[in-house]
Amino acid sequence: MAFRYPNGRRYNQSSQQGRKKENYNNRGMRFEEDINSSINYYRETGRALIHKKPTPVQIVSVDYPKRSAAKITEAYFRQPSTTDYQGIYRGMPVDFEAKETRSHTSFPLKNLHLHQVKHLEEVKAHGGLAFLLLRFGGEQAMYVIDAAHVIPWYYDQSERKSLTKRYVASHSCIVPEKLQPRYPFLDAVDELYFTNDS
Amino acid sequence: MAFRYPNGRRYNQSSQQGRKKENYNNRGMRFEEDINSSINYYRETGRALIHKKPTPVQIVSVDYPKRSAAKITEAYFRQPSTTDYQGIYRGMPVDFEAKETRSHTSFPLKNLHLHQVKHLEEVKAHGGLAFLLLRFGGEQAMYVIDAAHVIPWYYDQSERKSLTKRYVASHSCIVPEKLQPRYPFLDAVDELYFTNDS
Repeated sequence: MAFRYPNGRRYNQSSQQGRKKENYNNRGMRFEEDINSSINYYRETGRALIHKKPTPVQIVSVDYPKRSAAKITEAYFRQPSTTDYQGIYRGMPVDFEAKETRSHTSFPLKNLHLHQVKHLEEVKAHGGLAFLLLRFGGEQAMYVIDAAHVIPWYYDQSERKSLTKRYVASHSCIVPEKLQPRYPFLDAVDELYFTNDS
Repeated sequence: MAFRYPNGRRYNQSSQQGRKKENYNNRGMRFEEDINSSINYYRETGRALIHKKPTPVQIVSVDYPKRSAAKITEAYFRQPSTTDYQGIYRGMPVDFEAKETRSHTSFPLKNLHLHQVKHLEEVKAHGGLAFLLLRFGGEQAMYVIDAAHVIPWYYDQSERKSLTKRYVASHSCIVPEKLQPRYPFLDAVDELYFTNDS
Protein backbone atom coordinates (compact mmCIF):
# COMPACT_ATOMS: atom_id res chain seq x y z
CA MET A 1 0.00 0.00 0.00
CA ALA A 2 1.67 3.22 -1.15
CA PHE A 3 1.35 6.07 1.29
CA ARG A 4 0.68 9.56 -0.04
CA TYR A 5 0.82 12.93 1.57
CA PRO A 6 -2.48 14.83 1.76
CA ASN A 7 -1.44 16.76 -1.34
CA GLY A 8 -1.16 13.51 -3.27
CA ARG A 9 2.62 13.41 -3.46
CA ARG A 10 4.02 9.94 -2.91
CA TYR A 11 5.79 9.43 0.37
CA ASN A 12 9.53 9.23 -0.24
CA GLN A 13 11.82 7.14 1.86
CA SER A 14 14.79 9.52 1.43
CA SER A 15 12.89 12.16 3.36
CA GLN A 16 13.68 10.14 6.44
CA GLN A 17 17.32 11.06 6.64
CA GLY A 18 16.85 12.44 10.12
CA ARG A 19 16.02 9.01 11.41
CA LYS A 20 19.07 7.47 9.84
CA LYS A 21 21.40 9.51 12.00
CA GLU A 22 20.10 8.09 15.22
CA ASN A 23 22.18 6.13 17.65
CA TYR A 24 22.76 2.57 16.48
CA ASN A 25 22.07 1.20 19.95
CA ASN A 26 18.48 2.30 19.76
CA ARG A 27 17.90 0.51 16.52
CA GLY A 28 17.25 -2.96 17.96
CA MET A 29 14.51 -1.59 20.13
CA ARG A 30 13.18 0.53 17.31
CA PHE A 31 13.14 -2.49 14.99
CA GLU A 32 10.79 -4.27 17.36
CA GLU A 33 8.68 -1.17 17.91
CA ASP A 34 8.36 -0.64 14.17
CA ILE A 35 7.12 -4.18 13.68
CA ASN A 36 4.73 -3.84 16.60
CA SER A 37 3.35 -0.59 15.23
CA SER A 38 2.94 -2.24 11.82
CA ILE A 39 0.96 -5.19 13.21
CA ASN A 40 -1.14 -2.76 15.25
CA TYR A 41 -1.84 -0.75 12.11
CA TYR A 42 -2.86 -3.89 10.25
CA ARG A 43 -5.09 -4.94 13.13
CA GLU A 44 -6.78 -1.56 13.38
CA THR A 45 -7.40 -1.41 9.64
CA GLY A 46 -8.69 -4.99 9.68
CA ARG A 47 -6.19 -6.35 7.18
CA ALA A 48 -4.71 -8.95 9.53
CA LEU A 49 -5.02 -10.08 13.11
CA ILE A 50 -1.48 -10.49 14.40
CA HIS A 51 -0.25 -10.15 17.98
CA LYS A 52 3.15 -10.28 19.56
CA LYS A 53 3.34 -13.01 22.16
CA PRO A 54 4.26 -11.93 25.67
CA THR A 55 7.67 -12.97 26.98
CA PRO A 56 7.12 -16.06 29.12
CA VAL A 57 7.99 -15.53 32.74
CA GLN A 58 8.05 -17.97 35.64
CA ILE A 59 6.50 -16.11 38.56
CA VAL A 60 7.85 -17.12 41.97
CA SER A 61 6.50 -14.52 44.34
CA VAL A 62 3.89 -11.77 44.28
CA ASP A 63 3.08 -9.03 46.77
CA TYR A 64 -0.47 -7.77 47.12
CA PRO A 65 -0.11 -4.27 48.56
CA LYS A 66 -3.25 -2.49 49.79
CA ARG A 67 -4.83 -0.11 47.30
CA SER A 68 -2.39 -0.84 44.53
CA ALA A 69 -1.71 -3.40 41.86
CA ALA A 70 -0.21 -6.81 42.60
CA LYS A 71 3.56 -6.56 42.40
CA ILE A 72 5.66 -9.46 41.16
CA THR A 73 8.80 -9.49 43.30
CA GLU A 74 10.53 -12.58 42.02
CA ALA A 75 10.32 -14.07 38.57
CA TYR A 76 12.56 -15.60 35.93
CA PHE A 77 12.60 -15.62 32.16
CA ARG A 78 11.50 -18.89 30.63
CA GLN A 79 12.45 -20.28 27.26
CA PRO A 80 9.68 -19.43 24.80
CA SER A 81 8.24 -22.43 22.98
CA THR A 82 7.11 -20.52 19.90
CA THR A 83 8.00 -17.55 17.74
CA ASP A 84 7.18 -13.97 18.68
CA TYR A 85 4.41 -13.15 16.23
CA GLN A 86 1.27 -15.10 15.47
CA GLY A 87 -2.09 -14.47 13.96
CA ILE A 88 -4.40 -14.70 10.99
CA TYR A 89 -4.02 -13.27 7.50
CA ARG A 90 -6.46 -13.95 4.64
CA GLY A 91 -8.03 -16.62 6.80
CA MET A 92 -4.72 -18.44 7.17
CA PRO A 93 -2.57 -18.94 10.25
CA VAL A 94 0.59 -16.81 10.08
CA ASP A 95 3.62 -17.14 12.26
CA PHE A 96 6.92 -15.35 12.06
CA GLU A 97 10.03 -14.34 13.86
CA ALA A 98 11.68 -10.93 13.37
CA LYS A 99 15.46 -10.72 13.54
CA GLU A 100 17.97 -7.99 13.02
CA THR A 101 21.70 -8.39 12.54
CA ARG A 102 24.38 -5.73 12.61
CA SER A 103 26.15 -7.46 9.79
CA HIS A 104 25.85 -5.73 6.42
CA THR A 105 26.51 -8.90 4.48
CA SER A 106 25.10 -11.97 6.21
CA PHE A 107 22.61 -13.28 8.76
CA PRO A 108 24.28 -15.58 11.32
CA LEU A 109 22.07 -18.62 11.90
CA LYS A 110 22.98 -18.65 15.58
CA ASN A 111 20.60 -15.69 15.92
CA LEU A 112 17.80 -18.23 15.65
CA HIS A 113 16.93 -20.57 18.48
CA LEU A 114 16.12 -24.21 18.00
CA HIS A 115 12.65 -23.79 19.50
CA GLN A 116 11.87 -21.05 16.96
CA VAL A 117 13.02 -23.17 14.04
CA LYS A 118 11.10 -26.21 15.28
CA HIS A 119 8.00 -24.12 15.78
CA LEU A 120 8.19 -22.65 12.27
CA GLU A 121 8.52 -26.20 10.92
CA GLU A 122 5.42 -27.26 12.82
CA VAL A 123 3.47 -24.25 11.53
CA LYS A 124 4.34 -25.22 7.96
CA ALA A 125 3.42 -28.84 8.63
CA HIS A 126 0.02 -27.68 9.89
CA GLY A 127 -0.61 -25.55 6.82
CA GLY A 128 0.22 -22.09 8.16
CA LEU A 129 2.45 -19.41 6.66
CA ALA A 130 5.81 -19.43 8.41
CA PHE A 131 8.49 -16.90 7.62
CA LEU A 132 11.21 -14.66 8.98
CA LEU A 133 11.47 -10.89 8.83
CA LEU A 134 15.17 -10.10 8.52
CA ARG A 135 16.96 -6.79 8.61
CA PHE A 136 20.65 -6.29 7.92
CA GLY A 137 22.92 -3.60 9.33
CA GLY A 138 22.93 -0.32 7.45
CA GLU A 139 19.60 -0.99 5.75
CA GLN A 140 16.16 0.37 6.50
CA ALA A 141 14.45 -2.21 4.34
CA MET A 142 13.85 -5.75 5.45
CA TYR A 143 13.16 -9.10 3.88
CA VAL A 144 10.34 -11.61 4.19
CA ILE A 145 11.80 -15.07 3.65
CA ASP A 146 9.82 -18.30 3.88
CA ALA A 147 11.02 -20.61 6.64
CA ALA A 148 11.67 -23.35 4.06
CA HIS A 149 14.62 -21.34 2.76
CA VAL A 150 16.15 -21.10 6.21
CA ILE A 151 15.40 -24.32 8.11
CA PRO A 152 17.66 -26.71 6.14
CA TRP A 153 20.66 -24.41 6.60
CA TYR A 154 19.91 -24.11 10.29
CA TYR A 155 20.09 -27.86 10.71
CA ASP A 156 23.20 -28.19 8.57
CA GLN A 157 25.41 -25.48 9.99
CA SER A 158 28.45 -27.57 9.13
CA GLU A 159 27.87 -26.39 5.59
CA ARG A 160 26.67 -22.86 6.12
CA LYS A 161 26.76 -20.96 9.42
CA SER A 162 25.08 -17.87 8.05
CA LEU A 163 22.88 -16.79 5.17
CA THR A 164 24.48 -14.26 2.86
CA LYS A 165 22.46 -11.17 2.13
CA ARG A 166 22.60 -12.18 -1.52
CA TYR A 167 21.01 -15.54 -0.73
CA VAL A 168 18.33 -13.88 1.37
CA ALA A 169 17.64 -11.22 -1.27
CA SER A 170 17.19 -13.82 -4.01
CA HIS A 171 14.82 -16.03 -1.96
CA SER A 172 12.65 -13.38 -0.37
CA CYS A 173 10.56 -10.28 -0.93
CA ILE A 174 11.85 -6.92 0.16
CA VAL A 175 9.88 -4.65 2.50
CA PRO A 176 10.82 -0.98 2.14
CA GLU A 177 10.44 1.20 5.20
CA LYS A 178 7.44 3.49 4.85
CA LEU A 179 5.44 5.66 7.14
CA GLN A 180 2.12 3.97 7.79
CA PRO A 181 2.56 1.13 8.44
CA ARG A 182 6.26 1.48 9.04
CA TYR A 183 6.89 -1.95 7.50
CA PRO A 184 4.19 -2.93 5.02
CA PHE A 185 5.35 -6.53 5.19
CA LEU A 186 1.98 -7.97 4.21
CA ASP A 187 2.52 -6.63 0.69
CA ALA A 188 5.63 -8.80 0.57
CA VAL A 189 3.66 -11.72 2.04
CA ASP A 190 1.08 -11.25 -0.74
CA GLU A 191 3.81 -11.34 -3.34
CA LEU A 192 5.49 -14.36 -1.77
CA TYR A 193 2.44 -16.53 -1.13
CA PHE A 194 -0.59 -15.22 -2.97
CA THR A 195 0.58 -14.01 -6.39
CA ASN A 196 -0.30 -16.43 -9.21
CA ASP A 197 -0.19 -19.23 -6.67
CA SER A 198 3.57 -19.26 -7.05
CA MET B 1 -11.17 -40.55 19.86
CA ALA B 2 -12.32 -43.29 22.23
CA PHE B 3 -9.68 -44.50 24.60
CA ARG B 4 -9.44 -48.18 25.34
CA TYR B 5 -7.54 -50.14 27.89
CA PRO B 6 -4.90 -52.54 26.54
CA ASN B 7 -7.40 -55.37 26.92
CA GLY B 8 -9.80 -53.55 24.59
CA ARG B 9 -12.30 -52.51 27.25
CA ARG B 10 -13.56 -48.99 26.75
CA TYR B 11 -12.31 -46.45 29.22
CA ASN B 12 -15.10 -45.58 31.59
CA GLN B 13 -15.47 -42.23 33.21
CA SER B 14 -17.10 -43.64 36.33
CA SER B 15 -13.87 -45.44 37.13
CA GLN B 16 -12.50 -42.06 38.12
CA GLN B 17 -14.36 -41.74 41.34
CA GLY B 18 -11.14 -41.30 43.23
CA ARG B 19 -10.51 -38.04 41.45
CA LYS B 20 -13.94 -36.71 42.21
CA LYS B 21 -13.27 -36.70 45.90
CA GLU B 22 -10.43 -34.25 45.64
CA ASN B 23 -10.45 -30.85 47.24
CA TYR B 24 -12.58 -28.39 45.30
CA ASN B 25 -9.95 -25.68 45.64
CA ASN B 26 -7.56 -27.59 43.47
CA ARG B 27 -10.03 -27.97 40.68
CA GLY B 28 -9.45 -24.59 39.04
CA MET B 29 -5.78 -25.30 38.72
CA ARG B 30 -6.44 -28.82 37.58
CA PHE B 31 -8.88 -27.56 34.94
CA GLU B 32 -6.12 -25.47 33.39
CA GLU B 33 -3.58 -28.27 33.71
CA ASP B 34 -5.94 -30.72 32.06
CA ILE B 35 -6.43 -28.41 29.11
CA ASN B 36 -2.70 -27.78 28.87
CA SER B 37 -1.96 -31.49 28.94
CA SER B 38 -4.60 -32.02 26.25
CA ILE B 39 -3.09 -29.42 23.91
CA ASN B 40 0.35 -30.88 24.56
CA TYR B 41 -0.96 -34.33 23.69
CA TYR B 42 -2.47 -33.01 20.47
CA ARG B 43 0.78 -31.24 19.61
CA GLU B 44 2.90 -34.29 20.26
CA THR B 45 0.63 -36.51 18.21
CA GLY B 46 0.54 -33.91 15.42
CA ARG B 47 -3.22 -33.46 15.41
CA ALA B 48 -3.14 -29.73 16.19
CA LEU B 49 -0.63 -27.03 16.99
CA ILE B 50 -2.05 -25.11 19.92
CA HIS B 51 -0.16 -23.20 22.60
CA LYS B 52 -1.20 -21.39 25.72
CA LYS B 53 -0.16 -17.77 25.61
CA PRO B 54 2.08 -16.58 28.43
CA THR B 55 0.61 -14.15 30.95
CA PRO B 56 1.70 -10.68 29.88
CA VAL B 57 3.92 -8.97 32.41
CA GLN B 58 5.34 -5.46 32.48
CA ILE B 59 8.93 -5.86 33.63
CA VAL B 60 10.30 -2.91 35.59
CA SER B 61 13.54 -4.13 37.04
CA VAL B 62 15.87 -7.06 36.56
CA ASP B 63 18.93 -8.20 38.51
CA TYR B 64 21.76 -9.96 36.73
CA PRO B 65 23.50 -11.96 39.45
CA LYS B 66 26.84 -13.58 38.62
CA ARG B 67 26.66 -17.24 37.62
CA SER B 68 22.92 -17.46 37.78
CA ALA B 69 19.87 -16.61 35.75
CA ALA B 70 18.58 -13.06 35.40
CA LYS B 71 16.08 -12.38 38.18
CA ILE B 72 13.09 -10.11 37.67
CA THR B 73 12.66 -8.15 40.89
CA GLU B 74 9.80 -5.85 39.95
CA ALA B 75 7.05 -6.51 37.47
CA TYR B 76 3.31 -6.06 37.12
CA PHE B 77 0.54 -8.02 35.46
CA ARG B 78 -0.73 -6.45 32.27
CA GLN B 79 -4.16 -6.83 30.72
CA PRO B 80 -3.95 -9.54 28.06
CA SER B 81 -5.14 -8.42 24.61
CA THR B 82 -6.16 -11.86 23.42
CA THR B 83 -7.51 -15.16 24.64
CA ASP B 84 -5.37 -17.81 26.32
CA TYR B 85 -5.19 -20.46 23.64
CA GLN B 86 -4.24 -20.09 20.01
CA GLY B 87 -3.03 -22.25 17.22
CA ILE B 88 -3.77 -24.20 14.08
CA TYR B 89 -6.18 -27.08 13.53
CA ARG B 90 -6.88 -28.65 10.12
CA GLY B 91 -5.00 -25.76 8.55
CA MET B 92 -7.30 -23.23 10.18
CA PRO B 93 -6.56 -20.67 12.86
CA VAL B 94 -8.15 -21.66 16.18
CA ASP B 95 -8.58 -19.48 19.20
CA PHE B 96 -10.37 -20.19 22.43
CA GLU B 97 -10.78 -19.29 26.02
CA ALA B 98 -11.30 -21.87 28.77
CA LYS B 99 -13.52 -20.98 31.71
CA GLU B 100 -14.78 -22.83 34.71
CA THR B 101 -17.60 -21.80 36.98
CA ARG B 102 -18.56 -23.24 40.34
CA SER B 103 -22.19 -22.84 39.46
CA HIS B 104 -24.00 -26.06 38.62
CA THR B 105 -26.66 -24.31 36.56
CA SER B 106 -25.30 -21.28 34.73
CA PHE B 107 -22.22 -19.53 33.40
CA PRO B 108 -22.03 -15.89 34.56
CA LEU B 109 -20.98 -13.69 31.65
CA LYS B 110 -18.93 -11.52 33.97
CA ASN B 111 -16.39 -14.37 33.92
CA LEU B 112 -15.46 -13.15 30.45
CA HIS B 113 -13.44 -10.02 29.88
CA LEU B 114 -14.23 -7.51 27.19
CA HIS B 115 -10.82 -7.97 25.55
CA GLN B 116 -11.45 -11.72 25.27
CA VAL B 117 -14.86 -11.21 23.69
CA LYS B 118 -13.52 -8.59 21.27
CA HIS B 119 -10.64 -10.84 20.33
CA LEU B 120 -12.93 -13.81 19.65
CA GLU B 121 -15.04 -11.53 17.45
CA GLU B 122 -11.95 -10.49 15.50
CA VAL B 123 -10.86 -14.11 15.07
CA LYS B 124 -14.26 -14.95 13.58
CA ALA B 125 -14.13 -11.90 11.33
CA HIS B 126 -10.74 -13.06 10.04
CA GLY B 127 -12.01 -16.56 9.31
CA GLY B 128 -10.69 -18.46 12.31
CA LEU B 129 -12.49 -20.85 14.63
CA ALA B 130 -13.37 -19.05 17.85
CA PHE B 131 -14.99 -20.84 20.75
CA LEU B 132 -15.16 -21.25 24.49
CA LEU B 133 -14.46 -24.32 26.59
CA LEU B 134 -16.84 -24.18 29.54
CA ARG B 135 -17.03 -26.35 32.59
CA PHE B 136 -19.74 -26.18 35.22
CA GLY B 137 -19.47 -27.05 38.89
CA GLY B 138 -20.00 -30.67 39.76
CA GLU B 139 -19.30 -31.88 36.23
CA GLN B 140 -16.22 -33.50 34.79
CA ALA B 141 -17.35 -32.96 31.21
CA MET B 142 -17.07 -29.63 29.47
CA TYR B 143 -18.66 -27.91 26.50
CA VAL B 144 -17.29 -26.44 23.29
CA ILE B 145 -19.51 -23.52 22.31
CA ASP B 146 -18.93 -21.29 19.31
CA ALA B 147 -18.29 -17.66 20.22
CA ALA B 148 -21.29 -16.60 18.11
CA HIS B 149 -23.59 -18.15 20.71
CA VAL B 150 -22.00 -16.15 23.49
CA ILE B 151 -20.97 -12.73 22.13
CA PRO B 152 -24.47 -11.23 21.65
CA TRP B 153 -25.43 -12.08 25.25
CA TYR B 154 -22.20 -10.61 26.53
CA TYR B 155 -23.01 -7.29 24.91
CA ASP B 156 -26.61 -7.35 26.03
CA GLN B 157 -26.29 -8.23 29.69
CA SER B 158 -29.39 -6.18 30.42
CA GLU B 159 -31.29 -9.13 29.02
CA ARG B 160 -29.20 -12.05 30.21
CA LYS B 161 -26.38 -11.88 32.73
CA SER B 162 -25.49 -15.51 32.48
CA LEU B 163 -25.91 -18.47 30.16
CA THR B 164 -27.94 -21.32 31.59
CA LYS B 165 -26.38 -24.74 31.39
CA ARG B 166 -29.38 -25.78 29.35
CA TYR B 167 -28.68 -23.04 26.78
CA VAL B 168 -25.00 -24.00 26.64
CA ALA B 169 -25.79 -27.70 26.33
CA SER B 170 -28.17 -27.13 23.44
CA HIS B 171 -25.76 -24.87 21.49
CA SER B 172 -22.53 -26.78 21.99
CA CYS B 173 -20.80 -30.12 21.83
CA ILE B 174 -19.95 -31.94 25.00
CA VAL B 175 -16.42 -33.09 25.81
CA PRO B 176 -16.32 -36.02 28.24
CA GLU B 177 -13.30 -36.31 30.47
CA LYS B 178 -11.06 -39.12 29.33
CA LEU B 179 -7.57 -40.26 30.04
CA GLN B 180 -5.41 -39.38 27.05
CA PRO B 181 -5.94 -36.61 26.19
CA ARG B 182 -7.76 -35.62 29.33
CA TYR B 183 -10.17 -33.47 27.31
CA PRO B 184 -10.52 -34.67 23.71
CA PHE B 185 -12.06 -31.34 22.77
CA LEU B 186 -11.01 -31.54 19.13
CA ASP B 187 -13.56 -34.32 18.63
CA ALA B 188 -16.20 -31.81 19.71
CA VAL B 189 -14.62 -29.19 17.42
CA ASP B 190 -14.88 -31.68 14.54
CA GLU B 191 -18.52 -32.26 15.30
CA LEU B 192 -19.24 -28.55 15.65
CA TYR B 193 -17.40 -27.25 12.59
CA PHE B 194 -16.45 -30.06 10.27
CA THR B 195 -19.35 -32.52 10.22
CA ASN B 196 -21.44 -32.27 7.01
CA ASP B 197 -20.35 -28.64 6.77
CA SER B 198 -22.99 -27.83 9.37
